[in-house]
Amino acid sequence: MLKDLPLSEVYCLIEPGPVVMLSTSRNGRPNLMTMSWHMMVEFEPPMIACVVSSGNDSFEALRIAKECVIAIPDVKLAEKVVAVGNCHGRDLDKFAAVGLSTIPGERVLAPLISECFANLECKVVDTRLVNKFNLFVVEVLKAWIDPAQKSPRTIHHRGYGTFIVDGETIELKSKMR
Amino acid sequence: MLKDLPLSEVYCLIEPGPVVMLSTSRNGRPNLMTMSWHMMVEFEPPMIACVVSSGNDSFEALRIAKECVIAIPDVKLAEKVVAVGNCHGRDLDKFAAVGLSTIPGERVLAPLISECFANLECKVVDTRLVNKFNLFVVEVLKAWIDPAQKSPRTIHHRGYGTFIVDGETIELKSKMR
Repeated sequence: MLKDLPLSEVYCLIEPGPVVMLSTSRNGRPNLMTMSWHMMVEFEPPMIACVVSSGNDSFEALRIAKECVIAIPDVKLAEKVVAVGNCHGRDLDKFAAVGLSTIPGERVLAPLISECFANLECKVVDTRLVNKFNLFVVEVLKAWIDPAQKSPRTIHHRGYGTFIVDGETIELKSKMR
Repeated sequence: MLKDLPLSEVYCLIEPGPVVMLSTSRNGRPNLMTMSWHMMVEFEPPMIACVVSSGNDSFEALRIAKECVIAIPDVKLAEKVVAVGNCHGRDLDKFAAVGLSTIPGERVLAPLISECFANLECKVVDTRLVNKFNLFVVEVLKAWIDPAQKSPRTIHHRGYGTFIVDGETIELKSKMR
């Protein structure tokens, strides 16, 4: 069973820069892509900027439906995450093709990915930089975590199929939130 | 001696989401801040979006001088990186206070940080989301790496002084750049 994550803690998931998956729904048809170009822009309500190439079917879905789910995978899903990036949603059901299952969201039509340890239901709130940079700003309306996945380790893309996995954790006295 | 990094490889440094430092110069006075809210928006010429809080002196420097250096530290600089985040540039010379030294840039007045393994000289190219989100888009004009720092490991901020250090690297056959 997924559990609510307080919106004030969303940035702790996105700020480290993990590879995520972006789920959309358009005309009742869900789609999925892999995404690495994203960042926080506001703590609360949490807002995230992301770049979605206009060559992706997800671009049109996001532009038209104006909502999405950002799903964060643990390293054990790395091969599936890459498989999602390697195939086109226009031709097939990506979820079935790569072996990922969905759960309906509560606030958006785009589905959650049940294998991911976190899922963020989002709506598009700013499109001024879409034409020039394919950059969308989305607001997180609802955040879910899977309490069964303890201490997940994320992956970070260094280009051309090279990924860095989360290593040790260090604590330093910071005044930064 | 620093060495040129081809601009086409800049995204490999930023896409994984490391904590970076942002150096600026305003009226001949350099300043420095720690930054975690940034992402790639274009491969080449490389463009990076970043959020700089308007409460920071660096915000005004970036808004007015329209240029900066993004410097990427290895984990061995983690304490200095946090010290930079914990003090204010208005009151003191941060570089001296935390023990970091500078090198003049080639394309911008903001200084490079000599202890960092990579330094990116940037100019601001889009400010449309500055008023609403403190979001600047910068273009990387020149990129430097320190060849003496082999296999650097970066840090990623998880909030409140908790950092994840780069762990193992995995390779997967990806069609994604």
